Amino acid sequence: METKLNQYLAEINDTIAHIHYPAAPDGLYEPVRYTLSLGGKRIRPLLTLMGCELFGKHRSEAIAPATAIEIFHNFTLLHDDVMDKAELRRGKPTVHCVWNENTAILSGDVMQIMAYKELSKTPQPYLKEVLNLFSKMAAEICEGQQYDMEFENKTEVSTNDYIMMIRLKTAVLLGCALKIGATIADAPQQDAELLYRFGEDLGLAFQLKDDYLDVYGDSRVFGKKIGGDILNNKKTFMLISALNNADDTTRSELNRWIEKKSFNPEEKISAITRIYNQLGIDRICENEMEKRYRNALKSLQKIQVEEDRKEMLYYLAEQMMKRTV
Amino acid sequence: METKLNQYLAEINDTIAHIHYPAAPDGLYEPVRYTLSLGGKRIRPLLTLMGCELFGKHRSEAIAPATAIEIFHNFTLLHDDVMDKAELRRGKPTVHCVWNENTAILSGDVMQIMAYKELSKTPQPYLKEVLNLFSKMAAEICEGQQYDMEFENKTEVSTNDYIMMIRLKTAVLLGCALKIGATIADAPQQDAELLYRFGEDLGLAFQLKDDYLDVYGDSRVFGKKIGGDILNNKKTFMLISALNNADDTTRSELNRWIEKKSFNPEEKISAITRIYNQLGIDRICENEMEKRYRNALKSLQKIQVEEDRKEMLYYLAEQMMKRTV
Repeated sequence: METKLNQYLAEINDTIAHIHYPAAPDGLYEPVRYTLSLGGKRIRPLLTLMGCELFGKHRSEAIAPATAIEIFHNFTLLHDDVMDKAELRRGKPTVHCVWNENTAILSGDVMQIMAYKELSKTPQPYLKEVLNLFSKMAAEICEGQQYDMEFENKTEVSTNDYIMMIRLKTAVLLGCALKIGATIADAPQQDAELLYRFGEDLGLAFQLKDDYLDVYGDSRVFGKKIGGDILNNKKTFMLISALNNADDTTRSELNRWIEKKSFNPEEKISAITRIYNQLGIDRICENEMEKRYRNALKSLQKIQVEEDRKEMLYYLAEQMMKRTV
Repeated sequence: METKLNQYLAEINDTIAHIHYPAAPDGLYEPVRYTLSLGGKRIRPLLTLMGCELFGKHRSEAIAPATAIEIFHNFTLLHDDVMDKAELRRGKPTVHCVWNENTAILSGDVMQIMAYKELSKTPQPYLKEVLNLFSKMAAEICEGQQYDMEFENKTEVSTNDYIMMIRLKTAVLLGCALKIGATIADAPQQDAELLYRFGEDLGLAFQLKDDYLDVYGDSRVFGKKIGGDILNNKKTFMLISALNNADDTTRSELNRWIEKKSFNPEEKISAITRIYNQLGIDRICENEMEKRYRNALKSLQKIQVEEDRKEMLYYLAEQMMKRTV
């Protein structure tokens, strides 16, 4: 299974490596090349290829929209990093740090256009439908990012609000990636919809896992520093649940840490983690994550295709929840 | 002719007024509504409708891509204003001033997606070709903006460099707007190309006029303050020509004004205008403008369509050069 996955991955990376860039200006296209060469797990384009093969068409039919999705995903990361003033992405300095903010804005803009250029190579009979699915998803991602920014300055955010936000910002892209693959393979409408829901729920579980690992992960395995969200007061599922489940004394303690301007980072991380432990936030988050994951698997099961064709999707979903891919 | 033009304009404005916006989040879509409600001359969508009717199809067939082009044009203005830190656009505060920079980035991003959403409504048989024309133009506009930013920090810029830059940043959009209309009306390839060149040369003439009017315009008629480019040391055709045509003494004087950190604005404007007058930069710019305009008209004449069908395009071009539309 892993060999097969690596084969698909190689095809995606090869396509990305052969994207046509205009000869000039370098100042515009170099940051795009940089962004796309930072790697990443390429999960989204993998899903498009798998969504296509699930319904019996060769994945080569879906390689153009798969590439478009990966370019678009990287564009959102680039602009999000500008908005969040993030300094690192995949362990490397972000575009606005290497170049400058204007370059990051403009190179992001041209990446969005490059994504649509790739998308236009979708086989003709499916072009219009694929375009519509893609643009709907793309607008939803912007909506998710907007909510994410608004939540940072909002005192009352419920876990429902949060799930709504990560659904838009993260999960719909996985659903859409799969559904575009299914569409190109002429999947029945109902199955394409189930596959979308599989991706969406998997995306939610995946993001919750991300929140969880920021607190309870092993930094050697997780690949980024533990506690980053805590230090940034990021309104993750963990923090929101803690604020909602705490008694008045504990909530005050949480808020004191959130409002503190100067503190010892290690101290803040361990204080907040201690509160999470007391409130059982780890279990609450794991339960939510497992619920979404189970829902994802249920949708996949319902798809009217022999079970052995679904093996690769089961495998990828499992790897994602284990976070080794 | 003016009645007919106003009818077309009303149709465009009506379509823009009826664009579908998702119900939420307001924080994302309100700046888009604001941007599109600032008005403007809607020249680009007009060109698309005219390009379509020139070859005998009803303009309603081209209204979707016409709208897409206007949304895209306004998106570029929005992001350019962020990059240039401009405070006013069409006499109103810019989005990043009314809201903030992150909102301006994100609302611009979603406008680009909205443009592609409109574009997807292009009649099916033309969709792929229209998409390709549009994306090529869109990337070129980003390239033009990149050159524009690079030129600001470059000492040696030739007038050829400058023409190349405004071709990308301004002119290709006019050419593309027309060619998309022509494509939808099944124009012969050669005529579509001539129409593109008409738009491109008209766009160059139009931008040169803009540079000229910043110095020699009547602020009551021109609608913006005279001398803005001079105060900002903007490398326009005027300034580049002056630097290239001046003798050493005059060039030093120009450079002294450019490098001065504190000065009386009126004094700087009149000193530089005096240099332009001495060097005959007004005539040089007018000649360049007229050459481009003549080229535009030549391309239009060559198109294999009865002359009376072209009347509206001749009329609009003339109005643009008079700058009353």
